[in-house]
Amino acid sequence: MSATEIINALADSARAAARTLNVATGAERAAALNVIADAITARSAEIIAANEEDMVRARAADINASLLDRLLLTQARVEGIANGARQVSQLPDPLGITLRHSTLPNGIDLQQITVPFGVIGMVYEARPNVTVDAAVILLMSGNAALLRGSSSAASSNQILVTVMRDALKSTKISPDVIQLIPSDDRDTVKALLNARGKVDLVIPRGSASLIRMVVDESTVPTIETGAGVCHVYIDEFADLEKAVPIIINSKVQRPSVCNAAETLLIHKSIAKEFAPIALKALHDAGVVLHGDSQTLALAGSIPITAATESNWCTEYGTLEMNVAIVDSVDAASAHITKYGTQHTEAIVTENKANAQRFIALSDCAAVMVNTSTRFTDGEQMGFGAEIGISNQKLHARGPMGLEAMTTTTWIVTGNGQIRS
Amino acid sequence: MSATEIINALADSARAAARTLNVATGAERAAALNVIADAITARSAEIIAANEEDMVRARAADINASLLDRLLLTQARVEGIANGARQVSQLPDPLGITLRHSTLPNGIDLQQITVPFGVIGMVYEARPNVTVDAAVILLMSGNAALLRGSSSAASSNQILVTVMRDALKSTKISPDVIQLIPSDDRDTVKALLNARGKVDLVIPRGSASLIRMVVDESTVPTIETGAGVCHVYIDEFADLEKAVPIIINSKVQRPSVCNAAETLLIHKSIAKEFAPIALKALHDAGVVLHGDSQTLALAGSIPITAATESNWCTEYGTLEMNVAIVDSVDAASAHITKYGTQHTEAIVTENKANAQRFIALSDCAAVMVNTSTRFTDGEQMGFGAEIGISNQKLHARGPMGLEAMTTTTWIVTGNGQIRS
Repeated sequence: MSATEIINALADSARAAARTLNVATGAERAAALNVIADAITARSAEIIAANEEDMVRARAADINASLLDRLLLTQARVEGIANGARQVSQLPDPLGITLRHSTLPNGIDLQQITVPFGVIGMVYEARPNVTVDAAVILLMSGNAALLRGSSSAASSNQILVTVMRDALKSTKISPDVIQLIPSDDRDTVKALLNARGKVDLVIPRGSASLIRMVVDESTVPTIETGAGVCHVYIDEFADLEKAVPIIINSKVQRPSVCNAAETLLIHKSIAKEFAPIALKALHDAGVVLHGDSQTLALAGSIPITAATESNWCTEYGTLEMNVAIVDSVDAASAHITKYGTQHTEAIVTENKANAQRFIALSDCAAVMVNTSTRFTDGEQMGFGAEIGISNQKLHARGPMGLEAMTTTTWIVTGNGQIRS
Repeated sequence: MSATEIINALADSARAAARTLNVATGAERAAALNVIADAITARSAEIIAANEEDMVRARAADINASLLDRLLLTQARVEGIANGARQVSQLPDPLGITLRHSTLPNGIDLQQITVPFGVIGMVYEARPNVTVDAAVILLMSGNAALLRGSSSAASSNQILVTVMRDALKSTKISPDVIQLIPSDDRDTVKALLNARGKVDLVIPRGSASLIRMVVDESTVPTIETGAGVCHVYIDEFADLEKAVPIIINSKVQRPSVCNAAETLLIHKSIAKEFAPIALKALHDAGVVLHGDSQTLALAGSIPITAATESNWCTEYGTLEMNVAIVDSVDAASAHITKYGTQHTEAIVTENKANAQRFIALSDCAAVMVNTSTRFTDGEQMGFGAEIGISNQKLHARGPMGLEAMTTTTWIVTGNGQIRS
């Protein structure tokens, strides 16, 4: 079979099976997640053995330590995956929620309710836990899952999908709502991205290049996740005691993730006092610094190089940061508009009008006022589960939990009314 | 300038101008709409004179009467356009609405609020009223508008945009939030569709071929509007007194629009009694009929031809309808899944469980229970204004009013909290 035939067959099977999800109650979907969790726990030895096959291949291919660690499944990690499924099962049912309800003058009852998308494709990289994390979020939100992981995790993904499908056999939900797309053929990704009409939505999770490829090549609607060139702006009315921990947390706590900050903006009227303090704190935390000319003039003995146009645009993912002095909230916002990726922007200020103006001029998924950019996160925001962080404006924006995996329909109930 | 340079310049100007919308209050946006409405009224003679230039060209090009009528602006139509703007100005402000609000355990205040997209491109066909209808909906929802109408309406669109921009000069909102894209160059459409990063969203309004072209060629996110192969299913538990008016209204009241029905499905247990009644009523209303073999056997003297595979898939837009006999709610739903376009599906039944099962198995923008498919409409649903009907699942689904022209952002307010 060609890659397109493979994808069409998997998608058709998933869509037919999704009818069992459509008529299942929230309690039945939650119960299925617990059956899956118990099966993962019970079959952990098989899962770890399959993972060891991937690890052997990865070590032979001389893959770096960080990737090896992402691939590895231990007993504790397998139990963590199972517990993740149990946690999702406890979340409120995202389906059938009435978002709007009214009675029209002609007596018609109008309701907008949440419904599943149908068939959702996930394209992701090495970490095999995503296979289960994504599948259980999609099942709980009534969607069939087409999973396309990395070939480096092929054995792990295969056993995890087998365990989940076997578990569903004892429930009212068809095992075919979870489908693993073969990862030994790169064409299956392209076929998935172009299965318009067969697949309702594709979500990429992984590197910027993976996401860009998905967005560029897909004719199926996609939700772009990812790139974050986030800024922290220290206003002239900032409480400087709060500012340093917020800057350090935003940059240093986990520099590899999309909600880490890349650029610090400081208002000119506090720059002389505050820039040396901030630069020293960042330098002491191991951060490599780049600055505009005004910042360089204030750096004293702290090592810092002149920031290039390319620095301002870069998502470092490492302990590296740009610093600029700006004239006003509007100037900070103008810098952010020019160089940002519409992910997360922070302002530190005690002045409410300035915070409000910063919010109004921002165009991003999340605005932080007096707190760290690192809080743009589904778990931190209390969603209970996160399938990714949307970096686009259509549909969902910011961290996506169960609700973001639903769409809506209008239920229009009459008593024979016709339109005149 | 190349088409791309033209679009980039217009989009940059619109985005810069949109900052005046971002900081304007709802009352200021509403006031601007009224200033626009008054200017349209005051300058109606100029508008009608410019429209006459388009009409002269259209008549010379031997354009058909229906298109000529769509292009024509009369004093009454111009006043209707102005009143439409006044009505939109009275709607509730869609911006800054808090959709979710919580306080996290660490004391952080979390709000999800509605915000504008930024710059929205509209691609549409002959009717010049869309130029104003779209511009005022976009302005009221805080978005800058890039308008690309048809070259056949070039003079009308030019004067309407000039009048709106002139009107904005007396307000706090920059006239550059409304930009007319030259329609004398087809490449400007393609450039608009690929202005990723410059334009936040493109909405096509018009023929199926226009919409398909936009969806296929765009790298900018789009909202697909349009095609409706809608069904009416008459259940075994239908009140047949209600059924006939609903069928006739769904098919006949305005066959050219997307929420008109194309196929009638009748449950087998009532088919012998009801099919002849329904077929006669449709025939008497001038509807050309196509049926499956069971329907043909019940048609008696009513003219009807055997429906082909192509009939079941066709959005007629005219007085033509398919009829099939089905075994159950599930069979009706299976037919709809196979041939429908996920727009609007209706069930006529007095049995609540069957209605609920039909809803659960439907995958469409609107489900009608005991009422006409023609009610999938922003005005009928009480939205006050409609920019189109979304036929996709991402973001908005069904009729789109002001709210659908907003996206969201998360406002995270702390007191120095950092992530541990």
